[in-house]
Amino acid sequence: MKRLNSAGILIALTIASASVNAMTERQQWIQPLQPAEIKNPEKVELGKQLFFDPRLSMSGIISCNTCHNLSLGGVDNVKTSIGHKWQAGPVNAPTVFNSSLAIAQFWDGRAEDLKAQAAGPIEAAVEMAMPHTLAVDVIQSIPGYVEQFKRIYGNDKVDMDKITDTIAEFENTLVTPGSRFDLWLQGDDNALTADEREGYDIFASSGCVACHNGPAVGGTSFQKMGVLEPYVSSSPAEGRFAVTGKDAERFMFKVPTLRNVELTYPYFHDGEAATLEEAVDIMGRLQLGRQYSEDELGKIVAFLKTLTGERPAMALPLLPASGDKTPRPEPFR
Amino acid sequence: MKRLNSAGILIALTIASASVNAMTERQQWIQPLQPAEIKNPEKVELGKQLFFDPRLSMSGIISCNTCHNLSLGGVDNVKTSIGHKWQAGPVNAPTVFNSSLAIAQFWDGRAEDLKAQAAGPIEAAVEMAMPHTLAVDVIQSIPGYVEQFKRIYGNDKVDMDKITDTIAEFENTLVTPGSRFDLWLQGDDNALTADEREGYDIFASSGCVACHNGPAVGGTSFQKMGVLEPYVSSSPAEGRFAVTGKDAERFMFKVPTLRNVELTYPYFHDGEAATLEEAVDIMGRLQLGRQYSEDELGKIVAFLKTLTGERPAMALPLLPASGDKTPRPEPFR
Repeated sequence: MKRLNSAGILIALTIASASVNAMTERQQWIQPLQPAEIKNPEKVELGKQLFFDPRLSMSGIISCNTCHNLSLGGVDNVKTSIGHKWQAGPVNAPTVFNSSLAIAQFWDGRAEDLKAQAAGPIEAAVEMAMPHTLAVDVIQSIPGYVEQFKRIYGNDKVDMDKITDTIAEFENTLVTPGSRFDLWLQGDDNALTADEREGYDIFASSGCVACHNGPAVGGTSFQKMGVLEPYVSSSPAEGRFAVTGKDAERFMFKVPTLRNVELTYPYFHDGEAATLEEAVDIMGRLQLGRQYSEDELGKIVAFLKTLTGERPAMALPLLPASGDKTPRPEPFR
Repeated sequence: MKRLNSAGILIALTIASASVNAMTERQQWIQPLQPAEIKNPEKVELGKQLFFDPRLSMSGIISCNTCHNLSLGGVDNVKTSIGHKWQAGPVNAPTVFNSSLAIAQFWDGRAEDLKAQAAGPIEAAVEMAMPHTLAVDVIQSIPGYVEQFKRIYGNDKVDMDKITDTIAEFENTLVTPGSRFDLWLQGDDNALTADEREGYDIFASSGCVACHNGPAVGGTSFQKMGVLEPYVSSSPAEGRFAVTGKDAERFMFKVPTLRNVELTYPYFHDGEAATLEEAVDIMGRLQLGRQYSEDELGKIVAFLKTLTGERPAMALPLLPASGDKTPRPEPFR
């Protein structure tokens, strides 16, 4: 290696600083996802088992993974989820991938974090329909679980607090770094095609980034669905209003993450937009008063598809056997 | 190492031959499971993806893995499976683990092999409710699948024959060797406790092995459910009769494998036996005219639990994204 003289050092510093500036500019709205840091692998593993365990439902056939399918985009890809006794839920299942980055959980933000969120669907009548007391009894009766709780918490008394704590710990690991857009954010000019790059320029300059920003490209605020035109929907969901009771927050929903949006169809809280083209077109008109041309739509969608990251590689969990005294599932109760 | 003289060689040969004889005797009824031989890893991987893909169902939420859950015992652990629109199926889901060793598939043996079997539940109205033509259209519309079919079969035309061929190839790998009972069969005297060993002696000497034999401890014949006493059931299933139309074969069912039977509760074609104790008690009385004592039941069950093998470790499959033209799921059709 050649030694640098002081002029060389100056040039090198100038290039580095220009590159830092370029980086900062690229990352103005959206920042690269960071890989998950796993602090307690045993707790993550237990949470994973519980996430996949259909015994947390009254029927014995619905697990967290049924609607937040990790083989798909952390969603079920149906308009609104189908739960206990084939009831249709009121809203489209949000992806569990990168959900740890959101300001709150659920479309209306009624849970402050993943731990609080995890308790909801277990007992919701249209989802897993499992009273918490029964969920605890089931898990407490499975020796292979009790052992793990004991190792992790120092005692073998199972409760909802521990169940949801481990599920949240697992969900915290469900980030999807490594998308082509992140490579570009990190300085790789060749990571995007010209069309994708242009698509991002339109996305940024026409104002999408006002709401879809941060490392998750969303999830940082609540916004009204239908700003310049009302959004017409048969969904009963009223958004933030259901939580705060404030009229001004009617139809305000948490801005969804656009990470892996290619995989999380159909779109919106009611799942009524089947394709990305349709979703972007509606967003442009209703939220920004902007009618994108077909060319623009194509480019924005091309950009959005560069947000598909690496879904975490994981072993299929092997669940411990029920004991003879484990309460049995009751699909028709 | 010491050199053996001729007397030493004779002794060594005698021990070896005694041990071969003991081995042969131990393996008279039940033989150890052999690990799966994977000839075409790409085909196995594609079959695994399809096995886990809920897009093979009309609703978009039921996959092969829903009822043959590989995180559990290759079953759903409910009396009879819940399918499309929450319909209850007529029979208990048999385990997919070691199913490649059975003489035929389904409780009534109506499919000759796993490939023929795989086609059934996809289109059955109470299971996945997906016409084969639509299943093919869906898979053909997913670029990530088409690519794989092309690599494996040399052309990219998807059909049910290829879909079921890959699923069967995957299912062929779902064997569970390494149980404690297999270790004992292979000569490890310490693999079983005295009670478990006694349980096996009762199991063998009282005649259970007449039907529950071979490496899968079952699956080798069809037998009448209720030989010495009729089996009373509200299940509509008539067994082999439904296939052959022969009166003599009414209520003849394929003898289920007892491998991993600890994990495949509830038991019998109608799922009416909740525990192993109950199932063994009924089998003894109805099939063998034998009333086992509580002590005998306990020992037989202890033996049965030594048949739990190693479920295959596998990565959770990551499924390719639908295209914009992929027919969308219709949970309420």
